[in-house]
Amino acid sequence: VLPIAVDAMGGDKAPGEIVQGAVQAAEQLGVDVLLVGRADAVEGHGLPTLVCDEVIGMDEDPGQGVRRKKDSSLVRAAEAVRDGRASAMVSAGNTGATMGAALLRMGRLKGVQRPAIATPIPVPGASPTILLDAGANAECSAPWLVQFALMGSVMSAERFGIDKPRVGLLSIGEEDAKGNSLVKEANALLRDTAGVNFIGNVEGRDILTDDVDVVVTDGFTGNVALKTLEGAMRFLVGKVFEAMMSSDEAKEAAKVLLPALAPVADELDPDAHGGAMLLGVDGVCIISHGSSSARAVVNAVRVARDMVSQGLVERLRGVVVTPAP
Amino acid sequence: VLPIAVDAMGGDKAPGEIVQGAVQAAEQLGVDVLLVGRADAVEGHGLPTLVCDEVIGMDEDPGQGVRRKKDSSLVRAAEAVRDGRASAMVSAGNTGATMGAALLRMGRLKGVQRPAIATPIPVPGASPTILLDAGANAECSAPWLVQFALMGSVMSAERFGIDKPRVGLLSIGEEDAKGNSLVKEANALLRDTAGVNFIGNVEGRDILTDDVDVVVTDGFTGNVALKTLEGAMRFLVGKVFEAMMSSDEAKEAAKVLLPALAPVADELDPDAHGGAMLLGVDGVCIISHGSSSARAVVNAVRVARDMVSQGLVERLRGVVVTPAP
Repeated sequence: VLPIAVDAMGGDKAPGEIVQGAVQAAEQLGVDVLLVGRADAVEGHGLPTLVCDEVIGMDEDPGQGVRRKKDSSLVRAAEAVRDGRASAMVSAGNTGATMGAALLRMGRLKGVQRPAIATPIPVPGASPTILLDAGANAECSAPWLVQFALMGSVMSAERFGIDKPRVGLLSIGEEDAKGNSLVKEANALLRDTAGVNFIGNVEGRDILTDDVDVVVTDGFTGNVALKTLEGAMRFLVGKVFEAMMSSDEAKEAAKVLLPALAPVADELDPDAHGGAMLLGVDGVCIISHGSSSARAVVNAVRVARDMVSQGLVERLRGVVVTPAP
Repeated sequence: VLPIAVDAMGGDKAPGEIVQGAVQAAEQLGVDVLLVGRADAVEGHGLPTLVCDEVIGMDEDPGQGVRRKKDSSLVRAAEAVRDGRASAMVSAGNTGATMGAALLRMGRLKGVQRPAIATPIPVPGASPTILLDAGANAECSAPWLVQFALMGSVMSAERFGIDKPRVGLLSIGEEDAKGNSLVKEANALLRDTAGVNFIGNVEGRDILTDDVDVVVTDGFTGNVALKTLEGAMRFLVGKVFEAMMSSDEAKEAAKVLLPALAPVADELDPDAHGGAMLLGVDGVCIISHGSSSARAVVNAVRVARDMVSQGLVERLRGVVVTPAP
């Protein structure tokens, strides 16, 4: 079994938390991990290493970073997957650069026009909703959205065990005629796409419900929706905690409520979910959020291992075909 | 002083709650209200009436509804404003039809290319953030977004008393180079627009903060963001209440926490805010949400009265000029 390449240099808490997470993943999950990064960061932790000299910063221009820094941890991790030295890569680093490195080194799956970032949105009490594209492509065509629907369906089935995942198209009304021109065109195409269980247009408020399994949208709208959701969650959770800390009496009351609230908070914790996937490249690439803790890395490695062992990429390979021009 | 025309037939709870709200508004605020609707709905409540025979349904096609139903409450209310028989209109009905009626009967302000729906998003502890366009125009051009920025700034100043409102452009990263082509073009235009205090690109997570006063976007993205926000709020508030009801002990604890949580819940209640405004038409038009209660109607009438007395439309008239082609 090939190891999973973990980019030790990517993320706000890199390399400390990332390396710690990689060590814990190896111990707890019994998987082989290949630590990719600078010698001073990756050596001495008892894990196999792939030493490189460069790092693409979190705010660096992704395109330039990937082109110029050929000895960066991100580029080396993607190469390790391409060259058969790793089965998957995991990074909490610069998202654009992770995409760029994976795309340039692993290449696209045949027929795939653009890879998409597929982000699982936790829905406490139900399976996560997969939102894609969550930010890889700021501008999309309708046929790309159809490919996202196909790939998202495969991911929903493989990762969350959903039979015939319900696919919704993100719009501003449920009626087919609602939306912008991209959505109207994609709606018509999706109605004619075999292999997609298309339930029609959905709205932003449906993402957090159990009414849909895969929400398809362009990368601009998807990223706006994702960050709006994160902002709303952070805001409200903050207000609830503020109320709980507002007096000694409130603190006592909070202790009573915490057992009921903690499981929800835990399910909403992005560290618990192992991150997003870049779908459409020829290899498993897990994108963890920038503030990933060691726990997030363990979960990302777990998801990477599962997606490798379930043959996600092979399942995707047959599913997406370029539509006739 | 001219009365405020209230569409008695629009909204999920029409005419009952709407009429009740109109009566309360007249009593509590001391304003003149003109009830517009079918005789059986509007007569006998002690208010002046404008009787009409038709109603445009909540799910009816807006364009067809406005064109075909010339004796509908929405069209008659807009006509009353045009003809100087009312100073403003308020409706909780079909949003698209409200826009259509206002646009066709009141007309656009000179220079305005497209009216936009400006929705105040409550930010507990701070002034609401105005999001526009929240759904009037699914497809926008960059010059329209500049006009939205100008109009939103006037509304923020007039309605919330903000001096030099900070205007952000909704995107997927703060850097000017991030976003789709519409955003990149609008960003460049906004940097050169006098009269807009442009702070650059903002993200979905910024809407609920005190970092920005006006968030400008196209009507598709704005509507998706708005509904995502609503969905997240409803979801989390539901979970908190579930936890509070989960045991007798929890119910007791909830009583302690409610005094601290109630003000937040109250500020987030859409009924407390008086609804969105259609900016860019030649008259005050308040769009309340479909599930408006009597309380929401009272607040909508209050906002309408304030916007009339502050001369919002006159303030807008000078501000927006068509850019050179």
